Amino acid sequence: MYFTSESSSNRVVERHFTVDDITGVIWTPETDSAGAPLILCGHSGGMHKQAPGLVAHAQHLVTRHGYSVVAIDAPGHGGRPRNEQDQQWVDALRAARAKGPRLMGPIIAEYNSSLAERAVPEWQATLDALQALPEIGTERPVGYGGTTLGTVVGLKLVAAEPRIAAAAFGPVIVFDALLEWAKQITIPVDFQVAWEDPEIDPRPSLKLFDACASRDKALHVYPGEHRETPRLAADGTDRFLTKHLRTAA
Amino acid sequence: MYFTSESSSNRVVERHFTVDDITGVIWTPETDSAGAPLILCGHSGGMHKQAPGLVAHAQHLVTRHGYSVVAIDAPGHGGRPRNEQDQQWVDALRAARAKGPRLMGPIIAEYNSSLAERAVPEWQATLDALQALPEIGTERPVGYGGTTLGTVVGLKLVAAEPRIAAAAFGPVIVFDALLEWAKQITIPVDFQVAWEDPEIDPRPSLKLFDACASRDKALHVYPGEHRETPRLAADGTDRFLTKHLRTAA
Repeated sequence: MYFTSESSSNRVVERHFTVDDITGVIWTPETDSAGAPLILCGHSGGMHKQAPGLVAHAQHLVTRHGYSVVAIDAPGHGGRPRNEQDQQWVDALRAARAKGPRLMGPIIAEYNSSLAERAVPEWQATLDALQALPEIGTERPVGYGGTTLGTVVGLKLVAAEPRIAAAAFGPVIVFDALLEWAKQITIPVDFQVAWEDPEIDPRPSLKLFDACASRDKALHVYPGEHRETPRLAADGTDRFLTKHLRTAA
Repeated sequence: MYFTSESSSNRVVERHFTVDDITGVIWTPETDSAGAPLILCGHSGGMHKQAPGLVAHAQHLVTRHGYSVVAIDAPGHGGRPRNEQDQQWVDALRAARAKGPRLMGPIIAEYNSSLAERAVPEWQATLDALQALPEIGTERPVGYGGTTLGTVVGLKLVAAEPRIAAAAFGPVIVFDALLEWAKQITIPVDFQVAWEDPEIDPRPSLKLFDACASRDKALHVYPGEHRETPRLAADGTDRFLTKHLRTAA
């Protein structure tokens, strides 16, 4: 793990890093408490580790809750080289979107499934590297939060990675593999569902919620589109993560 | 409407009343604010307007949030005379419970459906009478909360009564009529589901949640039985009601 830059503003320290060819960023409070939770943030499809919404939420988690937050670019995202097959999927998505958003579903299922396959070991390598740092260590409870592609990656990651103690997922286009991964999830999970989104059919998220084997889970439906998570919903998610990460600590 | 008693403790004023043959109780803050919400509380099956859990929650709503809270006895509950058919249902429920809790479902569907038919006009008459009081009036946003039988009555009431602006429902045995009533509900609704209850199958609550036509709704699954709503879940419900009643005000 190499740190490539460090800056600080509004009591938040931002450090960019690489782990092999993974590019990432970690935000920590200027005054960090040993044992405060570490949140892994998965960005949306087509976005990157410094997407504006993700950064705003990360800063909120750091300044309000004292968490550390880390984000990495998904394969082929945020300036990471995009392979030929990924480029074909991206082109197909653009064409489908122009014809009608609901046509994107089957392409997204293939593309996001492939991205998740590759992103899970990258998250694991990133977590290994972070936990090897004395200032992070292995004692911090680890949570995950993500939306759209970040939900897909997160579901597969949480199903595979026992170090994650609680997770929060935003709207997602549901495909069969997600339901299979969900069946392997037993940690507390929180879902946000946008009820009036032109691109993401909300109803299948109820199936996804049902499929999660977690005994403790929450689902919130809000009016509007997937980019418009209302403050109450976001606060609810924060409280959910905080409660379960404290319990895990 | 006749008030039959008034007492006060811990800054909560408790007044018992009757409206025709309905028996009820209203809790208000000693220092009441005009326009603070009024919450209608529906008790569980077999319980009454002063069930310990209901009273504890009412006191919390009054002292913490400044709400007024009202509860009435369902027909044949809390000392109200039980008619012959109700007695037959109660006897059948006792026998079914002894043989296996899941046998209670069909009896509960019939009995609770009948109770809801009768309880809805009673709630409406109670609300009429309360709103005619100068100290309550018609400007307060009205919410509803209930569990088991209280959920059944609440679903039918909310489907029929436009004065209710938001509602919170606890675990319930779902039967077909509930799904029909839910389809007529468009106000914000919050559901709590106990995932490990020997008497109430939790899965059908996902269908009930789906059936509600509300654009803004939340569902929380918690481990354990229906009598054990955890603090976080109850707080979430309070926040949900508070947000939507403020919006309605």
